[in-house]
Amino acid sequence: MLDDAWLTLGLAAGVTGETVTTVLERFGSVERATGASRNELLATGITDAGARDILSPDQEQQARCKDWLGASDCSLITWLDSRYPPLLREISAAPPLLFVRGDPDVLSLPQLSIVGSRSSTPGGAETASRFAGHLAQSGFCITSGLALGIDAAAHRAALTAGGRTIAVFGAGPDIIYPREHTSLANDIAANGALVSEFAPGCKPRRFQFPRRNRIISGLALGTLVVEAGLRSGALITARNAAEQGREVFAIPGSIHNPVARGCHQLIRSGAKLVETADDIIEELGGMFAGIAATIEQNLAPQFLPPDRALDSEYKRLLGLMGWDPVAIDTLIKRSGLTTEEVSSMLLILELEGRVEPLTGGCYVQREEGRSK
Amino acid sequence: MLDDAWLTLGLAAGVTGETVTTVLERFGSVERATGASRNELLATGITDAGARDILSPDQEQQARCKDWLGASDCSLITWLDSRYPPLLREISAAPPLLFVRGDPDVLSLPQLSIVGSRSSTPGGAETASRFAGHLAQSGFCITSGLALGIDAAAHRAALTAGGRTIAVFGAGPDIIYPREHTSLANDIAANGALVSEFAPGCKPRRFQFPRRNRIISGLALGTLVVEAGLRSGALITARNAAEQGREVFAIPGSIHNPVARGCHQLIRSGAKLVETADDIIEELGGMFAGIAATIEQNLAPQFLPPDRALDSEYKRLLGLMGWDPVAIDTLIKRSGLTTEEVSSMLLILELEGRVEPLTGGCYVQREEGRSK
Repeated sequence: MLDDAWLTLGLAAGVTGETVTTVLERFGSVERATGASRNELLATGITDAGARDILSPDQEQQARCKDWLGASDCSLITWLDSRYPPLLREISAAPPLLFVRGDPDVLSLPQLSIVGSRSSTPGGAETASRFAGHLAQSGFCITSGLALGIDAAAHRAALTAGGRTIAVFGAGPDIIYPREHTSLANDIAANGALVSEFAPGCKPRRFQFPRRNRIISGLALGTLVVEAGLRSGALITARNAAEQGREVFAIPGSIHNPVARGCHQLIRSGAKLVETADDIIEELGGMFAGIAATIEQNLAPQFLPPDRALDSEYKRLLGLMGWDPVAIDTLIKRSGLTTEEVSSMLLILELEGRVEPLTGGCYVQREEGRSK
Repeated sequence: MLDDAWLTLGLAAGVTGETVTTVLERFGSVERATGASRNELLATGITDAGARDILSPDQEQQARCKDWLGASDCSLITWLDSRYPPLLREISAAPPLLFVRGDPDVLSLPQLSIVGSRSSTPGGAETASRFAGHLAQSGFCITSGLALGIDAAAHRAALTAGGRTIAVFGAGPDIIYPREHTSLANDIAANGALVSEFAPGCKPRRFQFPRRNRIISGLALGTLVVEAGLRSGALITARNAAEQGREVFAIPGSIHNPVARGCHQLIRSGAKLVETADDIIEELGGMFAGIAATIEQNLAPQFLPPDRALDSEYKRLLGLMGWDPVAIDTLIKRSGLTTEEVSSMLLILELEGRVEPLTGGCYVQREEGRSK
């Protein structure tokens, strides 16, 4: 079975997406790789521990995986799957496999990660909710870590706003942590996705959370830190985001608020200070094009998401743009839509390669569109 | 009388410190300049209005000036006075004259300007007090604008801490504005200085306050904005500080606090986010040397402040430094003094050219000392 070989390779110690690419170049298929000798495996850069895992796979783990994958809402997204999220593919040490409960297609939506302290203040949780709700309504999927405090507030607000949200786990996809978020996790699975690189049955362990954080930041265009102490895991997510070339946003607070300290530290090291969700939408407009271009360059054609049929609102917006560079403000006036609606639509059109951002908040339609 | 000619030239429209330098090069003395013809004056770059003021000086204004200068605690500090503050001399369009009530020598102390909203929150005023008190104790003179709110809180805290403080006026030095700060102004005059470039009797007018703000920032090594709305005059002071090559510091606050908005805007445009007074002391250590060097280069010898006899604490610190580069932390350990005490002493030793800051929080004693 295809899954057997993928699970064997993908769950082996130290194997990343890049490893898979190397292995495929060498052996032609995942199945053939899992039948290779120890020396052949080591020659591709796989570690001793990784080779051991491939030569004698953990049968019990594989059985648990297959059992879990039997559920109708559970999927295994491999490195070669066209549904593997394009932004996550760009990060270093990208996971070779993703266990997904819910709709795997949401992983490819434009996302903003919202993270923060587990011991948030009431005001901080409210701020997280307000930002998450507004961004979800503006077309962003909200990605976070299902933790107490800021994470949960962000997930909940996205759901309340009728938007999509993704929770990335630091344990197996079947192990909801913390327990008290079981019903929240079920709601997320029904309106977004629960994601983990860890196999079903894998318990939450301290060292797994920093690894998880690189996926949260790696899925998203940017990471917003709402409240964080100086030792908060949210700062790891933010550092990952910066290293991955993504935008980092932080909300300032009173100098007397200990969970504002982490945000202030981030701002001092270059994070964008934001006061409103619109600050984020504005900022992401520009960088989006850059990331989209990198992805298009790096991806083989089979990895590109299928061409979306433009719905009439988008067609109308492109019509209003014409073929000259046009300012967002002009588009807002011409369309009668709100700033958020236009920004959100332009984001999506950018990802699809239909429009291109210029300096000064202007956009231009690309004649070649997707055909490039 | 010397004062007559200085008042005539210095109070003429458009005349700056630079004008005085040009005039002196051309005519040799201020007295001879005030006896020059209209064409001779225009040839030095003096404007029509300026020439008119010089050819027919405002006698009533001069009488008021001399009357005011008759008081024992009032002085006129001219562009050529050795007590003209060295940092203020560096700014563009520096005032040719300063009317000073109090001790003119405090104008040459290392200063931090603390400014902010007139409608500060109680928390903001408390923060201003805490920062001003701590910085005053660390050897900084606190400079501000005597306004309601943040300004007054900063002046008062400096006085309470037993430190020095300077209030710069947007009206004549005899006109205390707002009136309710009369007793505060008297306290400042007794423990620092009241300063104005405007002649005695000159009423407060809206356009004079932005001019005043350039003096506040120009006297200081850096400007701290504690709380400011988006249209606060404190933002003008901060912009002046940045244009003058001085450091700008801003204190963040809740995104729901309207008088945090100005601070957030400053941070986004490059101001240093500070959470504690020590953040400021740390930051100023480095830039101080640069400014001191520029001043030494640009000043004729007569402008350098007289060599201060080192008191025994300073001598001991220099002894503990030895002649190798040494980290501040090491000096703190060696001396048994606090971080603040050592930082403050190093600041003063830097200004005096006795020590030089290196990268990484290290300092080295300069063999040549003042003799350079």
